[in-house]
Amino acid sequence: MTLDDAALKSFGFIERPTKNMINIDPLQTGGILTEDARRALVEWGDGYSICDNCGGVLDLIKKPPVQKFIHEALPEFLGVDEVRITHGARESKFAVMHAIAQEGDTVILDGLAHYSSVVAAQRARLEIRKVPHSEKPDYHIDPEAYGTAIEETISETGKAPALALLTYPDGNYGNLADAKKIASVCHEYDVPLLLNCAYSVGRMPVDAKELGVDFIAGSGHKSMASCGPIGVLGVNNDNGDYSDIIFRKSPTNKNKEIELLGCTARSATLMTMIASFPEVVKRTRNWGNEVADARWFSEKLETMGLIQMGQKPHNHDLMFFEAPNLYEISTRVKKGRYFLYKELKSRNIHGIKAGLTKFFKLSTFEVGRENLSYIVDSFDEIIKKYE
Amino acid sequence: MTLDDAALKSFGFIERPTKNMINIDPLQTGGILTEDARRALVEWGDGYSICDNCGGVLDLIKKPPVQKFIHEALPEFLGVDEVRITHGARESKFAVMHAIAQEGDTVILDGLAHYSSVVAAQRARLEIRKVPHSEKPDYHIDPEAYGTAIEETISETGKAPALALLTYPDGNYGNLADAKKIASVCHEYDVPLLLNCAYSVGRMPVDAKELGVDFIAGSGHKSMASCGPIGVLGVNNDNGDYSDIIFRKSPTNKNKEIELLGCTARSATLMTMIASFPEVVKRTRNWGNEVADARWFSEKLETMGLIQMGQKPHNHDLMFFEAPNLYEISTRVKKGRYFLYKELKSRNIHGIKAGLTKFFKLSTFEVGRENLSYIVDSFDEIIKKYE
Repeated sequence: MTLDDAALKSFGFIERPTKNMINIDPLQTGGILTEDARRALVEWGDGYSICDNCGGVLDLIKKPPVQKFIHEALPEFLGVDEVRITHGARESKFAVMHAIAQEGDTVILDGLAHYSSVVAAQRARLEIRKVPHSEKPDYHIDPEAYGTAIEETISETGKAPALALLTYPDGNYGNLADAKKIASVCHEYDVPLLLNCAYSVGRMPVDAKELGVDFIAGSGHKSMASCGPIGVLGVNNDNGDYSDIIFRKSPTNKNKEIELLGCTARSATLMTMIASFPEVVKRTRNWGNEVADARWFSEKLETMGLIQMGQKPHNHDLMFFEAPNLYEISTRVKKGRYFLYKELKSRNIHGIKAGLTKFFKLSTFEVGRENLSYIVDSFDEIIKKYE
Repeated sequence: MTLDDAALKSFGFIERPTKNMINIDPLQTGGILTEDARRALVEWGDGYSICDNCGGVLDLIKKPPVQKFIHEALPEFLGVDEVRITHGARESKFAVMHAIAQEGDTVILDGLAHYSSVVAAQRARLEIRKVPHSEKPDYHIDPEAYGTAIEETISETGKAPALALLTYPDGNYGNLADAKKIASVCHEYDVPLLLNCAYSVGRMPVDAKELGVDFIAGSGHKSMASCGPIGVLGVNNDNGDYSDIIFRKSPTNKNKEIELLGCTARSATLMTMIASFPEVVKRTRNWGNEVADARWFSEKLETMGLIQMGQKPHNHDLMFFEAPNLYEISTRVKKGRYFLYKELKSRNIHGIKAGLTKFFKLSTFEVGRENLSYIVDSFDEIIKKYE
């Protein structure tokens, strides 16, 4: 590509095609900015804006109140001893794995783990052992299976796993496994547990000390109404001096934390997280209503012949549906498997991946009962249209 | 901290204290958003907005034109074979080091390397050998010294360094070392060279193939008028199949690149980079005028008794000054070493770190001759005021 004026016209400002649509993509519902965050975005949009008054350590900046946010508010919010900001949940997971494990060590992942947990372990050059889950429709994870996986690792490698990880909830079915029990099983073998809370921190209450987990990875862009990429990493030192290991400082650059490469998310990403924080805290207190909305929505779709997979009644806004009737329609209509996407799009609804009909996931988080009713009615209309 | 209403009032929307000031902090001048980027910021601010139409690989998204940007425009812009987006220059450097070196290998860094290069090497568990530079006032790096450092590494460890790195320009003096000659010296020993272009890509023309370097790390928030954190990583395969190594895919998740943890900078950060790109390309073509502005500014300050360190005449907007007269004033005035910061602040000028008087750096990039004249006059006024 020659970078002449004609070629450069492909870039510049570009509109977001889904703007103003009702978005039920699980990736999107928890990351919609609050009004305060929208203002912060413009205010702090310039590259390094947050560094205007930095003395050399991002998380100790006093103006704006980064220090207060990271060292006082977030530890309370997550129920941990220490927090740092990262570029996202996957970067939080990699940082923990890379810091506490040696190359070749084993990490235990739940069988429903997000691909980024797998890839983080591969980047850290660790062996992966998965904890199995039950089959369709429950996809249940038995806490005792963590013990089995740990014992198998010890018997096969002669060494305990360096870490165990649980996806809470998992990103396919929205199942919330018994984290407290799993932490307790892992701790019987002195294996620390990392909770991947990309879909929970910022949506629902999560407290590491209450659950007894050692590390929490959260996602700002997924669940904390923040402009991405940004995440949080919380460390609970109840079972070891973990924060000393993970946040160890450079021997040559004494105020720079090695695992964070000195500093991480800055400016608009961090300032939108700070801007949304009051509302994010408050919305986690409203979690009961969100779960009620999810259950109501699930019941409505099931009356139309769709089947919700995973825990039932469901405990999270992320839900996976099997839709044999929509699949059947797709086999005989002109637009084929794209018909559902197009029908929903024509009704201003986005978020079920184009081409999916038989299985798909969606999220009801903060969509609100009115829009959820509209979506339910839309499914009803679409199904009746092709019957 | 109890997260009650009173505590939460510390957060929410916060104003940027330096808004509307003339900012000459080298961190800030190249990261100021263009108008298109400011619009993109609002349009794409929601967490995962860019993923609306993602098929599983960030850099292959067609709508918005991410694929065209990363696979066509940026390779041309950087003079490389492959480009990926990262969270910043430091993350680009770590990705290269972590992917191509083994733990315990040596990396050669220029003696003026940014701390983040040091910390990236420490995170990758590499040994660091520094190439010395000449002393004050030039801080010159002799290309042949890279050969010496490589030979010393081989003789001491029995193994060639895995990588050499040059900071181009360095972040203290704004010196542009002879990258082409250094690349040639490194290649005599088959050692690849990474150019840290955090202060060059997006400000001035940089072409990896022309310079013969193997890797380029650039910074969106520092020099490409982007909302941070975001960076670029360019790979030139002329001397090895480096992109196959660095962008290797997961054996289990076949379309996910391990070293990037699947995907990196998303949404507003990437969309502001795309939005600013046409203007960024054009401004690099105006680099001659920026250098002329820097030289003019340097000469003006030198007539007042300040001394510019580093290359002279200077070749970059980032400049380091020694100011014995301002230091002398600081020893006898009431506000002590904060007097300069306060005097400049009262004149709406920000960017020289609070408390510095004897040595400081600044940047003239895109400040414009009118504002530069105003800054020159302000220094003149301040010096005369305390004489």
